[in-house]
Amino acid sequence: MSGSMASTLRGSLATKPVLWVAGAHDGISAKLVERNGFDAIWASSFEISTSHGVPDAGILTMSELLEAARSMVEVVGIPVIADCDNGFGDPANVCHMAHRYAAAGVAAVCIEDKQFPKVNSLFDGHQSLATIEDFSAKIRSAVCCRGASELMVFARIEALIANRGLDEALRRADAYADAGADVILIHSRQKSPEEVLEFARRWQNRTPLAIIPTTYYGITEDDVHRAGIRVVIHANHAMRSAVRAMNKTLASIAKRHSSREVEGEIASVSELFELEGMSDLVGKYR
Amino acid sequence: MSGSMASTLRGSLATKPVLWVAGAHDGISAKLVERNGFDAIWASSFEISTSHGVPDAGILTMSELLEAARSMVEVVGIPVIADCDNGFGDPANVCHMAHRYAAAGVAAVCIEDKQFPKVNSLFDGHQSLATIEDFSAKIRSAVCCRGASELMVFARIEALIANRGLDEALRRADAYADAGADVILIHSRQKSPEEVLEFARRWQNRTPLAIIPTTYYGITEDDVHRAGIRVVIHANHAMRSAVRAMNKTLASIAKRHSSREVEGEIASVSELFELEGMSDLVGKYR
Amino acid sequence: MSGSMASTLRGSLATKPVLWVAGAHDGISAKLVERNGFDAIWASSFEISTSHGVPDAGILTMSELLEAARSMVEVVGIPVIADCDNGFGDPANVCHMAHRYAAAGVAAVCIEDKQFPKVNSLFDGHQSLATIEDFSAKIRSAVCCRGASELMVFARIEALIANRGLDEALRRADAYADAGADVILIHSRQKSPEEVLEFARRWQNRTPLAIIPTTYYGITEDDVHRAGIRVVIHANHAMRSAVRAMNKTLASIAKRHSSREVEGEIASVSELFELEGMSDLVGKYR
Amino acid sequence: MSGSMASTLRGSLATKPVLWVAGAHDGISAKLVERNGFDAIWASSFEISTSHGVPDAGILTMSELLEAARSMVEVVGIPVIADCDNGFGDPANVCHMAHRYAAAGVAAVCIEDKQFPKVNSLFDGHQSLATIEDFSAKIRSAVCCRGASELMVFARIEALIANRGLDEALRRADAYADAGADVILIHSRQKSPEEVLEFARRWQNRTPLAIIPTTYYGITEDDVHRAGIRVVIHANHAMRSAVRAMNKTLASIAKRHSSREVEGEIASVSELFELEGMSDLVGKYR
Repeated sequence: MSGSMASTLRGSLATKPVLWVAGAHDGISAKLVERNGFDAIWASSFEISTSHGVPDAGILTMSELLEAARSMVEVVGIPVIADCDNGFGDPANVCHMAHRYAAAGVAAVCIEDKQFPKVNSLFDGHQSLATIEDFSAKIRSAVCCRGASELMVFARIEALIANRGLDEALRRADAYADAGADVILIHSRQKSPEEVLEFARRWQNRTPLAIIPTTYYGITEDDVHRAGIRVVIHANHAMRSAVRAMNKTLASIAKRHSSREVEGEIASVSELFELEGMSDLVGKYR
Repeated sequence: MSGSMASTLRGSLATKPVLWVAGAHDGISAKLVERNGFDAIWASSFEISTSHGVPDAGILTMSELLEAARSMVEVVGIPVIADCDNGFGDPANVCHMAHRYAAAGVAAVCIEDKQFPKVNSLFDGHQSLATIEDFSAKIRSAVCCRGASELMVFARIEALIANRGLDEALRRADAYADAGADVILIHSRQKSPEEVLEFARRWQNRTPLAIIPTTYYGITEDDVHRAGIRVVIHANHAMRSAVRAMNKTLASIAKRHSSREVEGEIASVSELFELEGMSDLVGKYR
Repeated sequence: MSGSMASTLRGSLATKPVLWVAGAHDGISAKLVERNGFDAIWASSFEISTSHGVPDAGILTMSELLEAARSMVEVVGIPVIADCDNGFGDPANVCHMAHRYAAAGVAAVCIEDKQFPKVNSLFDGHQSLATIEDFSAKIRSAVCCRGASELMVFARIEALIANRGLDEALRRADAYADAGADVILIHSRQKSPEEVLEFARRWQNRTPLAIIPTTYYGITEDDVHRAGIRVVIHANHAMRSAVRAMNKTLASIAKRHSSREVEGEIASVSELFELEGMSDLVGKYR
Repeated sequence: MSGSMASTLRGSLATKPVLWVAGAHDGISAKLVERNGFDAIWASSFEISTSHGVPDAGILTMSELLEAARSMVEVVGIPVIADCDNGFGDPANVCHMAHRYAAAGVAAVCIEDKQFPKVNSLFDGHQSLATIEDFSAKIRSAVCCRGASELMVFARIEALIANRGLDEALRRADAYADAGADVILIHSRQKSPEEVLEFARRWQNRTPLAIIPTTYYGITEDDVHRAGIRVVIHANHAMRSAVRAMNKTLASIAKRHSSREVEGEIASVSELFELEGMSDLVGKYR
């Protein structure tokens, strides 16, 4: 149920030094994140867009992203954090969003301070930011409209992505925390973790800090602990490994008109049955 | 559009000796099937169930399977063959199914002669068959309700799966062809292709024959040609490779709290952008 | 949230002599049921099928019925009781159903002891019943799979619809109550309430009793109280009045090529804005 | 199928002096529009928002509006014109929209030159317009991305709604026609048809002109013919009559705890079966 997963996530954040989170795009990838011991699932807009075969650029609607998050919530026992782009419009849209995601049992929503329609932060191109006032209004709306649920609100800062510098990023973090954000997510596409670590040192954990180390994957666990970073999200690796593997497998079958060469490298049919819970169902009911 | 993909599939079957088909579960896996040169996509009930994290046992509804097939159709330029379990009920349900799948632009539907609710054919357990009369009525319903569309109807025979022998399988194939099936799919879970090849020899291509060589993957391209088999479906290898790869990647990240070890083995972020069509969209519009 | 609406419904049943319930098919009809002071909303399979323009005969999938129920839950503050046909398959399907409806915040599910695919109980035609054993297994499954939620389970008896008599109906009621049903719904399509009232007298409220007085609308409030009936569901009147009114309005516009004649008889645009909550949204956010 | 309904609509526009269109929100209201002899169905954003119980203010997503349009397309034999707000974003979103609506078999999409998120044009409040350049780019995108389909593109001008005057409205109409719009829809919320008729006189049917006479319902058929208006859309009367009727029926049942008083004023159960096509289905299959 909704309440409990949001409260599980709040509890984990209160008691563990760092939450390790991984991205997913559907029920099975979410189950694999859970089985590998992560603290929570990131319902990644990038992964979900990729799974639909459309650009991660505000093309999928909230309905489609919500449906993907919901199908994760319904098959796992750990919290789902939903990547909600810029909140799908203005504060009225954010209110509707918070209401619907809370009802779906999602533990947290994350909104970012880019303008609609957005483009993926790692894509080389112009990124335009919302004003601090406009985005703070969205955060207040999410906080207000979560109602009696404990839905957490992550505020994602794109100032470093938009080359606006650390001071601007910190100014935004302050404003968003004032507006009621439960977690500040500082995003960066540098190869080095330096700007994120510097942000963390200056931020001093006024509210818990989250990062997505996709480009600066050289960051170490020690770096994370020393900087006081509280949430680390490996946001897109499940999909990236799936794409590589599917492509290789399909290429081999296409070339040989046979699956012989790949049989040893792919999961067995029985492994899929086990993951799906087939034996439980058939054993219990049929 | 619907008409054209069904007619593309009919055309391919009329002109190519063998159609090579691979299974998919969402837009991106469908795109990868297309890019690797396959003739068509199998919208696999097993893959789609796995992607939702639920057993392949009549748990997903027609709506969910149709939605997955539709999201494939909308992002590829090759035909989609939809695996429709046993047709989701009786002939009235099959009529509704044919109407809706045709409207979604699917090229073919495949229904199997098992009773509802079914269990995956490769799962060890009792499989109960529909009578020939009941299943033939479903085929006639699909044929009638495809209306002006050219939607193809595949009839999948589970007699070998249910240990009912070759004679029964051939009797069913005859009846289903009489009822209007465009393709007969003979299913088997033997390790050896022998029973399928024997079926093919005796069937003599009265209507085109399709197979799914999951368990008898030792079958060679030569076997296929000599037996006159016209459609070969590698039905679940995309998902099986995705599951293996995602699990390995997530395990590595969980263990090291870092993605360093896996970076070389997974698709880059840019590869995903390219597959999604990000540059086209941003280049053209933003 | 789920828990609270199920527990609201349990509370009402514990404290009020009779719950008055009305059917709906979408968000706005559900809102109107709420505004008119009913205790709960019946997410009617008949109304929802009609709204889709398809026969009430097991044609809509669980996904479509669930989506309609969910869109009611998200816009009202009273419990929603979902009419779930025969549970969409066998006990495994019922388990999945209970899990998903509980997650959607539905307060109760109602399943009926007809075989799949069903036909509406008021339609003149053969109705075939499930065995007591088979249907009891479904009830046990719903009860087990509601998990920690307080989702109520209504068991609907079709024995009178199938002309199997009062004794059979009572035998079924006993078995279903033993299996864990929270409410017994006795259905009848007689013009007179007599058989339902007789059932009530003999049942003696072993578990709370519900009725759907569509055909025997002559039943009085006194009859209900005296017989100890606890839940009265006016299951399809919202849709029936909508169809009549829309047809009349459209006929008038079609005939005159003008809406002048109907303007006085239909809701104003402002009334719709008020029902939608437009002023709240615009006043607060725009 | 898609092609044919778009081409039916193009054919009607080429041969009939005026197309009479009425709004709907689901399958059954669409069926009633068809039965009453209208030329096409307006899949009204206002009606569909109301049916979900949410404000007509950019709250529903494209997915939800598309799903409603699709469920109309699948049950009627006349063209569906989809009211697509402002196109759900920028030209990239419009491209995606055109592709998906064409695939769903919709005959036409209508986009309006307001900024996202919009508020219903009849609601008293500030309305901000897109620039001519920005909106023309959206029209070009829709035209380009309809691909091989014959999907029509309606451009809806909100200049009169935004009090920008007739000259601005005509300037926009010219630009949108140049950009490839197939039909110009001039919207007004005056009580008198005068400004719309004056627009029509000055526009001289450079491309076919459509109107939505909700507030100026005094306009006569003669006015329409003389002004050369080609499409008249009664956009929201089905829902307005349904709301009034459902409210009255529910109030009566709530007050009397009985449906006796309303039985004579609402459609019978049999009428609903007939509209759903129940006899056809049961007669043919069960």
